Amino acid sequence: MSKAIKQNLAESKKMSAELFCLTYGAMVTEMLKDYEDPKDVTVQLDKMGFNMGTRLADDFLAKNANVPRCVDTRQIADVLCRNAIPCYLGVSATASAWTSGDREFTITLESNPLTELVQVPPNLVSAGLSYSQVIAGAIRGALEAVHFKVYASATDSGANTDIRIRFDQVLKDSLPAGEDD
Amino acid sequence: MSKAIKQNLAESKKMSAELFCLTYGAMVTEMLKDYEDPKDVTVQLDKMGFNMGTRLADDFLAKNANVPRCVDTRQIADVLCRNAIPCYLGVSATASAWTSGDREFTITLESNPLTELVQVPPNLVSAGLSYSQVIAGAIRGALEAVHFKVYASATDSGANTDIRIRFDQVLKDSLPAGEDD
Repeated sequence: MSKAIKQNLAESKKMSAELFCLTYGAMVTEMLKDYEDPKDVTVQLDKMGFNMGTRLADDFLAKNANVPRCVDTRQIADVLCRNAIPCYLGVSATASAWTSGDREFTITLESNPLTELVQVPPNLVSAGLSYSQVIAGAIRGALEAVHFKVYASATDSGANTDIRIRFDQVLKDSLPAGEDD
Repeated sequence: MSKAIKQNLAESKKMSAELFCLTYGAMVTEMLKDYEDPKDVTVQLDKMGFNMGTRLADDFLAKNANVPRCVDTRQIADVLCRNAIPCYLGVSATASAWTSGDREFTITLESNPLTELVQVPPNLVSAGLSYSQVIAGAIRGALEAVHFKVYASATDSGANTDIRIRFDQVLKDSLPAGEDD
C-alpha cells in the first residue's frame, strides 16, 4: 500500500473491507430477489450510489480543505484517483483512455473491495447487472454535489473495475445562494 | 485507537467506515420498503448477518492461527472483544452483565460504525427494527461455524450498541467428518 493511500486512510475511520464486501453482496442478493430484471438492480445501485456520493462529497470536503477546486476534467480525475478513491475504497486508481477532447475518461481501480470475496454469475452480467455500479453512482453523486454533471458506468473484468466517466456540464444554476464553490 | 486494534486492522484490508455506514443504511432503507413490518427487517438482517458470520469465521481462523480454541463462554467473549470485533468493525468492545452461570453476557461496542452517520427513526425502533441486528447475526453465524450455538440480539442506545448473547449448546453432531475443531 502506497504512502499516499495510508495517509488518506488515516484521515478516515477504518474497517474491514471483507465485511463491506459481504454486506454489499447481501444487499445485491436481496435486490435481485426483489427486481425481476438485473438491469433494474443496476439502476437502483446507481441511485443508491448517487445518494451516498452526495454525502461522501460533504465528508470529503470537510476532511480535505487543502484539495484545490477543480477547473477541468483532468483535475477531477486526479482528485478522484489520488484522494477520493484511496480514501473511501482503500485502493489506488488510474485515469486513462481520454477521448472527446478530454470530456470522457476511464478510471481503473487496481482492485475492487466489492468483488473481492464474491463471484458475480456471468448470466447476471449478460442480463445487465453491473455489480459495481454503486461506485460509478457515488462518483456521479459526489461530482454533482460540487456542480459537475457527469455520466458514469462501471464494468467489472476480473480483479479490475473500470468506471467510464463522461462529463456533461457545469451546473451553474444549482449553486445555492451565497455558496461559491 | 489502541495498539491491539491497530494490529488487528493491519491483518485485514481496510476501507472507509463512512462508506460502509452509508451502504448499510441504503440496504436497510431498501428492505424497509420491501417488508411492511420492521420486525421482518430485523429477522432478515439477522439471517444476512448469520451468513456473513459463517464466512467471516473462515476468514478469521485463516488469519488468526495463534488464537487458542475456546472452551468456555468467557473465552469466547474474550476472543470476540479482543480480536474479532476490533478486526472487522474497527472498534473496541467489552463483555459484561454475566448471568445464568456465565451462559449469558452482553458485549458493548464502544462505538458503532453502522450508526455513525445515520439516525434510526424512533418509531421504527418501537415497531421492532433492530438496526444493528446484522452484527448480532454475524456473531451467531461465526460462533455456529465453530460449533457454538448461541442466541444474539442487538440494541442500539445512543452511540453504544449492546449485543446480548445467550449460549445454547455445543453442536457436536454437526462436526464434519475428519474435522476436530
